[in-house]
Amino acid sequence: MRADLRIDNTHVLDVYSGEIADMPVCVREGRILGFARLEADATVDDGGAFLLPGFIDAHVHLESSMLCPARFAQAVLPWGTVTIIADPHEIANVKGTDGLAYMLEATRRLPLDVRFMLPSCVPALPVEDAGASLSAADLLPWLDHPRVAGLGEMMNVPGVLSGDVELMAKMRAALDRGKKVDGHSPGLTGQGLDAYIATGISTDHECVTVGEIQDRIRRGMYVLLRESSASRDLLRLLSGVTPANSRRCLFCSDDLHPAAILENGHIDNHLRLAVAAGLDPVAAVRMATLNAAECYGLIDKGGIAPGRVADLVLVDNLRDFRVGAVWAAGRLAAENGRMLEALAPADDAAMRGSVRLAPLPANPFALRIPGGKARVIRLLPRSLMTEHHIRKVGVTADGDFDFALNPGLVKVAVLERHRATGKIGLGLLDENYGLRGGAIATSVAHDSHNLVVVGDNDDDMRLAVEETARLGGGVVMAADCRILATLPLPVAGLMSDRSAEETADAMRALLRLARVHYHIREEFDAVMALSFLALPVIPHLKITARGLFDVDAFRFVDIAAP
Amino acid sequence: MRADLRIDNTHVLDVYSGEIADMPVCVREGRILGFARLEADATVDDGGAFLLPGFIDAHVHLESSMLCPARFAQAVLPWGTVTIIADPHEIANVKGTDGLAYMLEATRRLPLDVRFMLPSCVPALPVEDAGASLSAADLLPWLDHPRVAGLGEMMNVPGVLSGDVELMAKMRAALDRGKKVDGHSPGLTGQGLDAYIATGISTDHECVTVGEIQDRIRRGMYVLLRESSASRDLLRLLSGVTPANSRRCLFCSDDLHPAAILENGHIDNHLRLAVAAGLDPVAAVRMATLNAAECYGLIDKGGIAPGRVADLVLVDNLRDFRVGAVWAAGRLAAENGRMLEALAPADDAAMRGSVRLAPLPANPFALRIPGGKARVIRLLPRSLMTEHHIRKVGVTADGDFDFALNPGLVKVAVLERHRATGKIGLGLLDENYGLRGGAIATSVAHDSHNLVVVGDNDDDMRLAVEETARLGGGVVMAADCRILATLPLPVAGLMSDRSAEETADAMRALLRLARVHYHIREEFDAVMALSFLALPVIPHLKITARGLFDVDAFRFVDIAAP
Repeated sequence: MRADLRIDNTHVLDVYSGEIADMPVCVREGRILGFARLEADATVDDGGAFLLPGFIDAHVHLESSMLCPARFAQAVLPWGTVTIIADPHEIANVKGTDGLAYMLEATRRLPLDVRFMLPSCVPALPVEDAGASLSAADLLPWLDHPRVAGLGEMMNVPGVLSGDVELMAKMRAALDRGKKVDGHSPGLTGQGLDAYIATGISTDHECVTVGEIQDRIRRGMYVLLRESSASRDLLRLLSGVTPANSRRCLFCSDDLHPAAILENGHIDNHLRLAVAAGLDPVAAVRMATLNAAECYGLIDKGGIAPGRVADLVLVDNLRDFRVGAVWAAGRLAAENGRMLEALAPADDAAMRGSVRLAPLPANPFALRIPGGKARVIRLLPRSLMTEHHIRKVGVTADGDFDFALNPGLVKVAVLERHRATGKIGLGLLDENYGLRGGAIATSVAHDSHNLVVVGDNDDDMRLAVEETARLGGGVVMAADCRILATLPLPVAGLMSDRSAEETADAMRALLRLARVHYHIREEFDAVMALSFLALPVIPHLKITARGLFDVDAFRFVDIAAP
Repeated sequence: MRADLRIDNTHVLDVYSGEIADMPVCVREGRILGFARLEADATVDDGGAFLLPGFIDAHVHLESSMLCPARFAQAVLPWGTVTIIADPHEIANVKGTDGLAYMLEATRRLPLDVRFMLPSCVPALPVEDAGASLSAADLLPWLDHPRVAGLGEMMNVPGVLSGDVELMAKMRAALDRGKKVDGHSPGLTGQGLDAYIATGISTDHECVTVGEIQDRIRRGMYVLLRESSASRDLLRLLSGVTPANSRRCLFCSDDLHPAAILENGHIDNHLRLAVAAGLDPVAAVRMATLNAAECYGLIDKGGIAPGRVADLVLVDNLRDFRVGAVWAAGRLAAENGRMLEALAPADDAAMRGSVRLAPLPANPFALRIPGGKARVIRLLPRSLMTEHHIRKVGVTADGDFDFALNPGLVKVAVLERHRATGKIGLGLLDENYGLRGGAIATSVAHDSHNLVVVGDNDDDMRLAVEETARLGGGVVMAADCRILATLPLPVAGLMSDRSAEETADAMRALLRLARVHYHIREEFDAVMALSFLALPVIPHLKITARGLFDVDAFRFVDIAAP
């Protein structure tokens, strides 16, 4: 038999035996043929490099990169990632099953193998104004798709523990098909954790302590060691990984910003960090490959062996994991950090125009606080938590909030943007965030992705909102009644169709302006802070299109405090 | 929540983390609830014992035990085996899909969880007169059965390597359903092994050398370390098992005689042998549990964790593995080597009367060798191989073989017994076997299970054959025109409906007679030697109902040698 490709002179890391063997690897029609020195149409000789199976990111929200699938693939493939398990939770909150259809179609022909976990909790809470709601009946037809590996992170822990009928139906449907259900159970222990796992949930990527990973591995879960832009957990968790339990450990990125991908890499970065911290390199590579394949039932992935998909990565050594060539299903996709061909974004027409605002009234941000005492949100740097303060604010004789009387306070508004219902929730941020000199709006706002705007004057707020809507989504900065800068995110208001480099540059420019123009404190990621302001599951005071939400009391509250 | 059962005061072996933890284990409705000390209807306190997941035999031909499924379950459950992966290859050769239906039905309500691999090679060879032939189309409807885990051992290596269409269709059907294909590739190496594995075959239980297991693990296979009545491979193979590759290793018994089960145990014996030979006990238990569950996709088996099936085994320690209580799906099945309740055999009416012989002619065993030179089979002790000899034999003036002229030579005949075609193959065994003083017949004769008879006179041969037919199958000894002893095997001519103890006793009695009455050399298992005489894949000279088969030349040959 003749091979399409023969790779000579590498140290082949065999994840099955844990050995490193010097032998040729032959590929034909996208699969590994074997280790005989066959005649081949093309040969590669990379004396001394290590040949590894393609890396697998076991859990990622692709939308968080703000890159559409082709652009995301373009960014991560050069780092050796050839397979991802994606949870399209964000786009599903905006576009429902149309969003799933788009993601499946947009990933169909990519060299990156994208498998999906269907979003289990859309909307995240019943009080949300999401763009869609996905019932068990909605998800059912998608579960049979060959690239759907199961049901995504089951965040509704109380619902699971109380046996919520709809949730059970979703899980049952996945499990009955031999597919997986991902978990999400931060802090859960003991009997609660037993009950959660007993329903068939088999992974968790939300561990932040060694105790959490031990508790979960002991109960038969796979744990995903996360290193994301928002949550750097890997090094802390590694001390819980032992030779005896590492087969139950995987790597994941969860959420990654485009600049982070470009600067730090992807799963190769997990490998570098883990090995530098003392993890056995073979165990580390297994976590990045075979273990993930086993966990998600990717039977022809995760190792270099006959019949397996020829996802292959050359790295310089097992310390730096500097990636050379990357083959995806036998085709050379990237070399030395560069894709061989640009990947064209898929048709995204159905995902455009997703920002549907009702016409703004004359004074959309007018805020009446007759008693002069208001609930105010304090943002905290490097945290998704906020503080809930009650304080005196300056108001006009009519009881209207007046910026002039409240230096340092800024308004925040959340505008429902899926169904043009006109709902607007209004609130105030205190001085901690530090914004002055204009407004910032974004259509990325977890999990419902309504439109969030903050500003120190109503006119710039209006302008920023209108420009965001005009762009069909994105991040907009306005000042002095002019648009200062934008990052258009026309794909469902979440993703760009531009490259990772352009997107990262645009984001860097926005963050620079946040500091130099708006004087927002450096400790904040000024844009991401806004994207989590509307997430009503994280304490203490948040805001949705229905108004302020007291997360501790789990109810809406009036901005005017008694 | 209240538990049905709580097991206190044991050392729980957690196969996921590789740790041993002292904690209560609660069970409800057949599944593990978790590790909280819940109120329970029943509690067990076994101070100091070790609690392990139920053992899994990863590959066994249940029929080889000569026990019907209920009797087999009765024999192995007390040894801690709670799950077996059975390949009903033998009964399928006799009864085709009716045999599969019987096996599925006969195992449906057993406490032993019996999963099946569908026999891939029935008949084993095109030259065989089996009772059935199973095409891809025949197997297809059975593949979706929830207890069918895949396609059984793919023995037709040349067929796989040449891309035989029918074989490929069988394999594709299993793989497309996410099910497994078992391998069988003794001695295969290099490029041939690459090609064999590339088709999707994922296990091998035929390794007899360390090199073979290494070759296969490196190529992504799971290897099954066998310790069977016929082939004791475990200790030899263990030196190839390393901490890095043991996750790809399982245990299996393949073929076990009833006496061996009663005397040595089952998978507990593998554990004892492996640990005595130096294998880490946790690695050994994983091979007996989690690894097998992972290999065969038994997602809720193989470990003690919430939601898993409550298959539990108490053992005294991790050296002797003396089994105390055994729970199957949460129900106490056995204790201290005894089943709590006898398991009643299923209705086997459809499997009876499987011996369908054409009426015997006047002289069925008359053997003409006009030239006086014959091919003679030499049986070899402790081997399935035979030797092919050509020698002078004494014949009458008419050219007929005459026992009186050939002291020490005995006749062997294979009678087609499935369709009453009347086919009879005739041959001679030389003095090595040693039989004199009567005849022995058996309906267990791999793989087609036609009726084999040997004897030093035609009358006893006829009597033994007729009695075997009358019994509907079994082993029969005749001497001086009387029946000396029998082991009835009425279920497809392969299995008894009596207990393991009775069956083993009957077999022991037969083997004693083989020595004391028939003077067969002690080195032979006198009955098993006959059961492999008709297997035309093992060198060098074998015999089928169509006559003598020269395995090396792969063709039928005449008994009269030129």
